[in-house]
Amino acid sequence: MKKTGRTGAHSPVLPVSVSNDRSVITLLSDFGTRDYFVGSIKGVILSINPHVNVVDITHDVPSHDIAAGAFTLLSTYRTFGPRTIHVAVVDPGVGSTRRPLLVAAAEQFFIGPDNGIFSFVYESEPNHEVYELTNDMYFRHPVSATFHGRDIFAPVAAALSTGIAALELGDPIVDALRLDTIEPKQLDRGGYKGRVLHIDRFGNCITNFKREMLSVEDEHRARITIKTKSIRSFRPFFSSTDKHREKLFAIWGSAGFLEIASYEQSAAKRLKTKVGDPVLLKLD
Amino acid sequence: MKKTGRTGAHSPVLPVSVSNDRSVITLLSDFGTRDYFVGSIKGVILSINPHVNVVDITHDVPSHDIAAGAFTLLSTYRTFGPRTIHVAVVDPGVGSTRRPLLVAAAEQFFIGPDNGIFSFVYESEPNHEVYELTNDMYFRHPVSATFHGRDIFAPVAAALSTGIAALELGDPIVDALRLDTIEPKQLDRGGYKGRVLHIDRFGNCITNFKREMLSVEDEHRARITIKTKSIRSFRPFFSSTDKHREKLFAIWGSAGFLEIASYEQSAAKRLKTKVGDPVLLKLD
Amino acid sequence: MKKTGRTGAHSPVLPVSVSNDRSVITLLSDFGTRDYFVGSIKGVILSINPHVNVVDITHDVPSHDIAAGAFTLLSTYRTFGPRTIHVAVVDPGVGSTRRPLLVAAAEQFFIGPDNGIFSFVYESEPNHEVYELTNDMYFRHPVSATFHGRDIFAPVAAALSTGIAALELGDPIVDALRLDTIEPKQLDRGGYKGRVLHIDRFGNCITNFKREMLSVEDEHRARITIKTKSIRSFRPFFSSTDKHREKLFAIWGSAGFLEIASYEQSAAKRLKTKVGDPVLLKLD
Repeated sequence: MKKTGRTGAHSPVLPVSVSNDRSVITLLSDFGTRDYFVGSIKGVILSINPHVNVVDITHDVPSHDIAAGAFTLLSTYRTFGPRTIHVAVVDPGVGSTRRPLLVAAAEQFFIGPDNGIFSFVYESEPNHEVYELTNDMYFRHPVSATFHGRDIFAPVAAALSTGIAALELGDPIVDALRLDTIEPKQLDRGGYKGRVLHIDRFGNCITNFKREMLSVEDEHRARITIKTKSIRSFRPFFSSTDKHREKLFAIWGSAGFLEIASYEQSAAKRLKTKVGDPVLLKLD
Repeated sequence: MKKTGRTGAHSPVLPVSVSNDRSVITLLSDFGTRDYFVGSIKGVILSINPHVNVVDITHDVPSHDIAAGAFTLLSTYRTFGPRTIHVAVVDPGVGSTRRPLLVAAAEQFFIGPDNGIFSFVYESEPNHEVYELTNDMYFRHPVSATFHGRDIFAPVAAALSTGIAALELGDPIVDALRLDTIEPKQLDRGGYKGRVLHIDRFGNCITNFKREMLSVEDEHRARITIKTKSIRSFRPFFSSTDKHREKLFAIWGSAGFLEIASYEQSAAKRLKTKVGDPVLLKLD
Repeated sequence: MKKTGRTGAHSPVLPVSVSNDRSVITLLSDFGTRDYFVGSIKGVILSINPHVNVVDITHDVPSHDIAAGAFTLLSTYRTFGPRTIHVAVVDPGVGSTRRPLLVAAAEQFFIGPDNGIFSFVYESEPNHEVYELTNDMYFRHPVSATFHGRDIFAPVAAALSTGIAALELGDPIVDALRLDTIEPKQLDRGGYKGRVLHIDRFGNCITNFKREMLSVEDEHRARITIKTKSIRSFRPFFSSTDKHREKLFAIWGSAGFLEIASYEQSAAKRLKTKVGDPVLLKLD
């Protein structure tokens, strides 16, 4: 973990207007869907602002997996419009001294614990502001030591949606926690050393290699190494009618990263790979 | 797969009015809920039309199982009101030449790939229109080759909800793909040969036999054969206080089809049956 | 099962007003999310009142587990605002003679089967009214014998959200079914005998011991016995930096009950405990 500095000077404030009666608050968590956790968060938000549109992104982030939550948030937030409020609660440190945060970036807001879950937002949006949520007037009381999602993050998100300004909710800070950078390491002899960022439901392995790291012209001489396998074939999409359906291939995925895939099969299972495993990208 | 003809002449257009600020867009997919897919689709829709009510039907259609998606859509769409827009994305051929479609039927709209997912809507609503989505002005750019749910279907659904006409979004076609018919085969010597359409969470096996294929008066002499079992008992509901709780029985289910069930037990497990297995309905 | 009496005289009626265009209807069920059940319920509600905000609490209550549904409802409803309508469908007796109910309590409404699912609401809100839903004018016809969620509970909830009065929907009753009380048994020699009410996604075991049964001053001499283990350590939150991370401990949980937990581990797995298992609370 490293510290992040205050990198921008803009201080977006949520505009209040009669026409803005359809604020969107998204929820992302590792709460699962079988407990009372998610329902409680929705209840608190809607009891404060019944006009808000509460939208589930996912509640199936693996338990306590902050990096997985950070990746899902990164892959989603840009599709939402200005003034969207994202509540992200993967919070193994709930109740301890870890700070509750509000982040303003990309004309949107992000609310959750200071444990790195907003790392990739900080990296993608150098122009951002981070606030520690200090004004407990906007919390739900009594504040449970084990469920800040319901008692701090939800009511603060609802307050924000009703037009309360960020500065009213907390104080700017400059030392928010960050996970390891999402950027691959540039190798001395050329190429990059990256990692498996995420494995999706279909078994595709999403790496942290971005389009700009490999020109289209160079694709024919690129080699991706993961576990003991070398992958040289790039394909434009998953569907295939050729005879090599079983082969592993590389594909530029919808989250903006290079993925390792296998048609109608789980590439992750074939590779026996897991999140965090190293991946090399080199040119022959 | 067979082709479907243009069977109707009506061309419903989504009315635009101030009072229609609560359009409903439903989502049905095989994306699961743990990835960024569903959140991205919601983000795109709400960024275009924040007044829309985005409703999850299910994201747990088995991966790439077009027939399962088609069945779930069939069992759901009639409960929704006029002008509802259904986005159905079970799309193993994403990125290939399969066409993106908009279907107008039953005063509702259906958006998704041309792979048969709307087959049972075509069959149930002879009066329907099918459009190929050709106007990429309404797509999200750049269009990913692997995620048309986010980049084509979601923005087109949102555009439709703001009052854009179907003809503005694409061109009518007459050769949409269809799955095998949902109708059972009438047997020469009487009775029907059908199949297991779906197995629900409780293990009930939903067949494709409809109420009109068996009169109430004939129930006492009906025999349903599935795997090696013969079922002769019809019951009006699942709850039972009799002593034969363990027995398999037939029941007219809530999706409008005959189901094979077993009280407080999975009929599918007892029968070791799976979707697609043949079922016979005969009269003694 | 015991019967509940009519315990209050107040008869809340849902106010109708132009400004109340964002009624909230919550859904809680054991339907799972992969079938057409949940989508159908949403369709029926939105086809009657497109202005309503339909909110999923959970559809992952274990099949037919009425007590689990009752617990989740208890842990959630208070977070919602006045006039919220909760539809709770864990309904193994659907189609039988069990009655469909509407409950008015805590300025909210509860709709579902008369099988004990509202027991803990009755216990928590002595001032409540129970109605049997008798007016089939507000049902969806034909009423399926196996899916009252779609054909009775959903349309009645939607009707209620449009301003129909409770008395218009049914008749007051005084003998609704109740599950065993949620209150632990006070022991003759001091202390309480309770039970495991719920095991959450993280493996925490939620008991039915409430804060008022143990003063903060007495915590140091409290002993909780579950299975063969004795637990004496109380912690304020889950996060821990001490060296005894593996130990079981007690914690006052966010649902208002004492929980048995284990940092970064499933306490339920360690204890091999299940819902309903007895738990003792004694002072040394």
